[in-house]
Formats: sequence, structure tokens, C-alpha cells
Amino acid sequence: MTPPPRQRATVHDVVARAGVSRGTVSRFLNGTGYVSADAAARIEAAIEAVGYVRNNAARNLVTQRSMAVGFVVHEPHQLFLGDPNIGSIMLGTNDALADAGYQLVVLVVASDSDAERVSTYLRGGFVDGVVLVSARTHDAVAEAVEKIALPAAVIGQPEGGGSLPHVAIDNHAAAREITERLVATGRRRVGMLASALDRDSGADRLAGFTEALGERFDESLVVTDPLYSYTSGVRGMAELLRRDPSVDGVFAASDAVAAGAIETLRAHGRRIPEDVGIVGFDDSDWAQRCTPKLSTVAQPAHDIGHAAARLVLDQLRSPEAAANVTLPTTVVWRASA
Amino acid sequence: MTPPPRQRATVHDVVARAGVSRGTVSRFLNGTGYVSADAAARIEAAIEAVGYVRNNAARNLVTQRSMAVGFVVHEPHQLFLGDPNIGSIMLGTNDALADAGYQLVVLVVASDSDAERVSTYLRGGFVDGVVLVSARTHDAVAEAVEKIALPAAVIGQPEGGGSLPHVAIDNHAAAREITERLVATGRRRVGMLASALDRDSGADRLAGFTEALGERFDESLVVTDPLYSYTSGVRGMAELLRRDPSVDGVFAASDAVAAGAIETLRAHGRRIPEDVGIVGFDDSDWAQRCTPKLSTVAQPAHDIGHAAARLVLDQLRSPEAAANVTLPTTVVWRASA
Repeated sequence: MTPPPRQRATVHDVVARAGVSRGTVSRFLNGTGYVSADAAARIEAAIEAVGYVRNNAARNLVTQRSMAVGFVVHEPHQLFLGDPNIGSIMLGTNDALADAGYQLVVLVVASDSDAERVSTYLRGGFVDGVVLVSARTHDAVAEAVEKIALPAAVIGQPEGGGSLPHVAIDNHAAAREITERLVATGRRRVGMLASALDRDSGADRLAGFTEALGERFDESLVVTDPLYSYTSGVRGMAELLRRDPSVDGVFAASDAVAAGAIETLRAHGRRIPEDVGIVGFDDSDWAQRCTPKLSTVAQPAHDIGHAAARLVLDQLRSPEAAANVTLPTTVVWRASA
Repeated sequence: MTPPPRQRATVHDVVARAGVSRGTVSRFLNGTGYVSADAAARIEAAIEAVGYVRNNAARNLVTQRSMAVGFVVHEPHQLFLGDPNIGSIMLGTNDALADAGYQLVVLVVASDSDAERVSTYLRGGFVDGVVLVSARTHDAVAEAVEKIALPAAVIGQPEGGGSLPHVAIDNHAAAREITERLVATGRRRVGMLASALDRDSGADRLAGFTEALGERFDESLVVTDPLYSYTSGVRGMAELLRRDPSVDGVFAASDAVAAGAIETLRAHGRRIPEDVGIVGFDDSDWAQRCTPKLSTVAQPAHDIGHAAARLVLDQLRSPEAAANVTLPTTVVWRASA
């Protein structure tokens, strides 16, 4: 079945309906020149009746605000789909913006041409501010945002700093803390499935792991992968067992990685936690779904998103309100180690 | 560390930098009245240098296009996070829009106030068209879209029709086909974990299941839940076993539901597929992660998103191009039944 074609209402429809001249409608829409109160009322009614979409032009010229805030997600396909944090962060941002009457506008960057198009969009005045998630160093979108001084918050702590204020957790301290807990269960050969070393979160988790092990750190027990994914856990754990079958402790850089690693450990006949203790990071749904349930680091994902939105809204009130925010994490100890 | 405050460039900055009068800059930005070529060049350079955000006003008044297309996701928290189809659909839409130079703008509707704000946003001229995902009957956003005749595509087949063109799969036929395959493995007591009966997908899958069983359909073996979630599978399977411990076949309304059901079956000591055969729907990552791997219906999620974007782009060229699209599904038979 083909629905009937729909015609978008034009200025001509408004003119015809209102029964005033085209020039009067034009002056009304542009907010320039004289329009009688009677004509204005008829034009308003006509706009409503024919469903004419007012150009946001008029609104922006008056308020200089679009009342929308962008949320830029840099994630390749698998990560975007599998990462439960991004969804929670997004909903936290949405809650804070909705309270302030702002519209959340999510922009996905999956390629270089996406990055360029999104930068153009941000320059176009469609949003009053922006939250950047998983920004990388020398990120094209972050550079565009700095250039136009758009109120912004970066989630995560970009390596090398950058001038944009950020909301972050202390990945380094959290990784050190959970690794110390793992070591304290008596593990002798502790490896790490490290992910996304090009991102602050990935690099800091490896640094925290390294610091916790100190003298006992063995570089050959660190297997790296670009993604925080279930599949990288499946593959990484197989590689770790190949390098040293006596591994008895594993810090996986995310819960999804840990879930994949558990699958491989099970396939190799290793009992968890008897033979191998394993811990993750995020306290996402993955942690609850693992058998046994996963010991992990809880990230306050919703709060992170909320804080990032507040940071942007604060800058919209006063540009000096751009203080960085660090939110606390908690080790959640369950049955996997 | 607190980053230095950033000031957003104003028209005053452009005036000061360009060394022309405020009136000249104003005429230039509004596109009204005379501006010399020399002044225009200096203003252009000043805008670039100070990072002034041009109001999209000017652009829209000329092109009547924002070059952006909205993507409205109606999902409660858990669904949005756990549903791999939405991510694939979104990326399919993004690919098709990017090819045409359009910006994808994702709008999340998680509450009634979100629905109202998103409707206002769509009326504001910020987007040239919209893709609606998981729209429900009498949906506020869909009604707003119809009223303003915004080029649109609905993903899924809204009950009762509506005038918006849609992209869908045949959930009814697909559910019937996989249920028939399940019955053909010799199962005698076949139940269904049905989800989201307020949505076309959920209602149609139940209808297909019912038709496949014909005379053998037993309403007491249908357990319903509002969500397509892992947790609804865990709970629903426990309820199904309580109602009839001799159940030997299960059609779960999604792979996530099936994964939860498998966890419960395992906890009750049922072997899969020896004691109970189970099939899902979606062919998402869940299907590959289940042990044993899940027999399921493959949805062409990326193609669905791509087709929806094409449908909107076609309408932007010609409003008569609004033909409904139905995409094929495939039964993928693995080890779970």
C-alpha cells in the first residue's frame, strides 16, 4: 500500500489562508517592518492551520539560542552497539538537559567524513553547546568546537589536555585498586586484557594495573586490543593462555572483555574463581550476566552524563563556569575472583 | 585544573575585527541591503578569524534546507541499551544520509515531556525530514510529523496504519516460519515468551506463532512481558516452567529474551536442545553468544535503516516518492533447536 503523497506547506499556503499580502507575511516571518495586530493574528492562525514549518531563523535571531545541545559519540560500529555506558551516559545527559528545557541531539561519528560533516553542523548554529564522548587526541570535532568557542564538556580526560573542560573518573586509581584486590586473593601470575590504548580510559587502566603489580609486573602478560568488546576478550584470553598457561588472575579492561574471556576460560576447562580469578570494569549488565557474576569497578555512567550536561548549561549562563569534574568509582566484589 | 574561560564570539567581535560598521555587518549577515565586495570579504575573514557562529537563519532563508534528518528513538532505558538492532538501524541510516550530504540527528524519547520537546524541535525547522523508530499507535511525535507534513519514514508497521510511509519486515510470516521449523523437530509442548504486545513487532510475532501451531496452540503456554529484554527471558521462562514443566519447545520474541530463558533452563537442569529446543528473533550478537548458539530469524537491520533514510531523501526530491518498503528476513538454524 502506498500512502497518499504529502505536500509540505509553503509560504504561499500561509498567504492564501491568512488572506493578507505576501509582503505582509514576509515582514511577519522576518520580524522586520510594520505588521498590524490583526494581520499578525491571522498569519499566526494560518501558520498553525496549514502546518507551516517556521524557519528557525526567526527564533534564533531573537534569542540567539537553538535550545539544543549536541552529544557527539565517536565509536566504531561494534563499540557503539555493545557499550552499555554510552547509553547510560546519554540518558543522564538527556535528563539534565530536559530539566533545563534543552533538546538533546545525538551526532554519530563513525568515519572521517562524519567528523567533517558534524563539525560543519556544530558551526551552523544548530546547537548551543556540545558534549563530546570518547574524544581522541587531535580529534577533528574537538578542534572545531574549540575554534568556535562552543560551550562544551568532554567525557573522559583527553591525553595532552586540550582546553575543553571535562568530566571523568580516575581510571588509573580504579584500575590500581581492583588489581590490588585481585592480587590479595593470592594470585601469582596476573595478566591484563588491555583495550583501546589510544584512549585515556584504556591507557590509564593499563597504567593503574602496572602500578598495582609493581615489581611483579610482566609485560608478556598484557594482551592488547583496539576494542572493549566481547570478541576481544574471547581472542585476548586465548592469546594470554598461549603465552602462559599458568595464568591465575586476569584484569579485563571492561566487563564485555571479561565476559568474552570467561567464555574462553570455560572452553579451556578452567574453573572460575578456583583456577583463575577474573575482574572487569564498568559494572554494566555484562557483570550480572556472567557466570559466576563478575567482580568489577562501578562507573557512575548516568551521573557522568548528567554532570557533562550541567557543565555545558553552566557555561551557557557564564563562560567562567567551566571547572573540570572527577566522579568517584566503587569496586563491586562478586564471585569471579 | 580549571581550563581558562572561553568567550563565544559575538557580532561585536566581527565588527571590531572587520573594521566596518555594525550596520554593514548586520546587512551582510541578514543578506539584505548593499554591502561592498571589499566589506564582504573583510567580514568573511573576520567571521573565520574570531570563530563567530553564523546563525543558521541565513542559510535556511536561502536554501530552505537544514541538511539534517532526525532519527527519533522511542525506547525505555533498558531497551535502548540492550537492543542491538537500534544501533545497526541507526548506522544504516547514517550511511545513506552521509552519502547524500545530510547530517543524522538522533533524538531520544524516554518520557512524555521528551515527546513534547522533540515535537517542538521537529516543528522548529531544524531537520528536513525524520526517521521514526519503534513508534507506537497514537504516538505524539508521529502525530506532530503528520501535521507539519515533514518528509518521514516509520520503521515498523504501526497498527491501524497512519499516513506515514514505513519500512518493515514481515514479523508475522517470519515468526510462523521459525515456529514451524521448531515444531518440525518433534516438539510436542511449545510455548512462547512474547514481548511488547503494544508494538507491531511484538503483536505480529505472537500472531505468527499462533498461526503456526493452529489446533495445537495453547494460550496457557504464552507468557508476556512489556520488554524484549534478557531479564524478561529469565523471568518468563521460570513462569513457563511453573505453568507446565513438560514444555519442550520455546519461541522467544527476541534473542535477548532467548538468552535469558537459556539461563533459567540451565538453572533448572534442562539440556538444550535435548530436553528443550529454543529459538529467538533478530540474529543479534546475543545469538552468537548463547551456549549453544541460537537458531533465530535474521533481521536486515542495517538495510532497514538505509531504506528508511532513502525513503526520506526520496520525499525531499518528490513528495510522491513515499512507497512503503518490506524487507526479507531469513531463518538461521544453529544448535539450540
